[in-house]
Amino acid sequence: MKYGIYGYGNLGHALEIAVRERGEEVGVIFTRRDPAKMQSATGAPIRSAAEAEAYAEGIDLLFMATGSAFDLPQDTPRMARLFHLVDCCDCHARLASHIAAADRAARETGHVALVAAGWDPGLFSVFRALSAAIAPQGECMTLWGRGVSQGHSEAVRRLPGVRFAKVYTIPSEAARRAVFCGTVLPAGTPLHRRECYIVAEAGTEERIRAEVLDMPHYFRGTPTEITFLCEEEFAASHGECGHAGRCTSVFHTGERGDHIEKMILSLSLASNPEFTAAVMAAYGCAALSLARAGQSGAFTPMDIPPRLLLSEAEKYL
Amino acid sequence: MKYGIYGYGNLGHALEIAVRERGEEVGVIFTRRDPAKMQSATGAPIRSAAEAEAYAEGIDLLFMATGSAFDLPQDTPRMARLFHLVDCCDCHARLASHIAAADRAARETGHVALVAAGWDPGLFSVFRALSAAIAPQGECMTLWGRGVSQGHSEAVRRLPGVRFAKVYTIPSEAARRAVFCGTVLPAGTPLHRRECYIVAEAGTEERIRAEVLDMPHYFRGTPTEITFLCEEEFAASHGECGHAGRCTSVFHTGERGDHIEKMILSLSLASNPEFTAAVMAAYGCAALSLARAGQSGAFTPMDIPPRLLLSEAEKYL
Repeated sequence: MKYGIYGYGNLGHALEIAVRERGEEVGVIFTRRDPAKMQSATGAPIRSAAEAEAYAEGIDLLFMATGSAFDLPQDTPRMARLFHLVDCCDCHARLASHIAAADRAARETGHVALVAAGWDPGLFSVFRALSAAIAPQGECMTLWGRGVSQGHSEAVRRLPGVRFAKVYTIPSEAARRAVFCGTVLPAGTPLHRRECYIVAEAGTEERIRAEVLDMPHYFRGTPTEITFLCEEEFAASHGECGHAGRCTSVFHTGERGDHIEKMILSLSLASNPEFTAAVMAAYGCAALSLARAGQSGAFTPMDIPPRLLLSEAEKYL
Repeated sequence: MKYGIYGYGNLGHALEIAVRERGEEVGVIFTRRDPAKMQSATGAPIRSAAEAEAYAEGIDLLFMATGSAFDLPQDTPRMARLFHLVDCCDCHARLASHIAAADRAARETGHVALVAAGWDPGLFSVFRALSAAIAPQGECMTLWGRGVSQGHSEAVRRLPGVRFAKVYTIPSEAARRAVFCGTVLPAGTPLHRRECYIVAEAGTEERIRAEVLDMPHYFRGTPTEITFLCEEEFAASHGECGHAGRCTSVFHTGERGDHIEKMILSLSLASNPEFTAAVMAAYGCAALSLARAGQSGAFTPMDIPPRLLLSEAEKYL
């Protein structure tokens, strides 16, 4: 199998290593920067994204590694006309239209586009679906962090004047207490807050602050604290990519409804992009199985039987 | 939809309540005891298991609630000839032959038999498959307990001379330390021990002790402590049905392999049979969807896309 990677930032690098770790080959990495000035970690060739069409025949599956906020809405449908692909589009609010656009492109050209295949949406979606099916009257709360949100960081980095940015997602005190005590929060209570650390060009700070706080789906409506700092301090203090997340599902059973049942899926990640790459690589196997079975269109992890991720699924029963 | 329940012990009772909680109807409960001497919790009719065939037309799905150790190997294939069904067969070692027998019976008669659909095997199988797909080189450790194993308790209760029995599964100290510290245990280290509390007829104790310790797949090879006690003490001390379980998956990522990623699925259950019933009820929806789509044969949760468990799966993306 030959894999392609579209985008060569944190996630693209992590995908390159993940594919090698699985004993597979990265046939090409596409970038929107100047390929002549770049070198890949494993020696895989780097080519201009504009040349992607020329590789349509030689690549079995393309991993998408551009940003969810501004890139994937165009990149995924465009690449789904050329390749079977996997993306980890992470914007819950725009997922329905993303799936519809990917489905049209993939169906018209006979490709499989397995989208939203990261950890949330992705693994956590699977857990929430299981939890809703097992406990239709139950409560399921998802908390992210404390950790670095790649999607939010990338969304800030794309604003004019931003040189570097890192966004941390942190569960609110109220949410953490509610999970610990098993209580239900009043609707509308913020579950998270965000801390943004930004290196900006002089004079752009106030505009950037306003644009971040007003960005729909990403920051608007969530308590957000913005700190501007110099490049040296940013480099010294914000080099890590760790993250964490937890879905907690609680429900009552029994004739008197007085038995409490609790299911928790939790992640503790040293590297968010590397874990995400591992999840995408797993769903890559499923996408190839669907393609071999003659299927086409858009899929999400919600459509994938666990068996499709593994050649010998029985071993894990 | 009309549901049937086959077996009316702890699990059968829990299924009856779970079906009612979902606003659905239990059309019939089958028992091997004398139905004339029994009353159901919700008023659902109780009939002799020997009459099951007469109900083949009126019941949409049958939930199996007899014991994994001695009953389901015969009951599931026999009932799969008459009904679409869900079971939670829990004997990992004999699962392959159980699936094969259920598949033959269900396929020949055009039924769907969704087996091993409890929490382990079941939910934990799904997690282990995801974990193996995401981290082919990773370690995944499953610990059960401390809690009451319904399957082991039932296996002991079936021995001649046993009047009451309860078996607790308890993670070994070594296993708990290994999970806490993220270390890998030498192969063969026992992960669990078991405590059996038994009320037995006078004079049968030593034979029962020998039979329990030698029971393949259930006790043989696992450190097991057996305590005989009188009925009064048993009733006072062993009325609970709580359980717990945890799958921990740990792997390394990154170019130098020095990033540790951790995924954990954990359950904390006030009632093992009631939680198991909720899981079976969820997979019941999937079994009916498969049947409506004209499929037949045996399936496990490994074959079920999460979407099939819910009518509006998109909501959980």
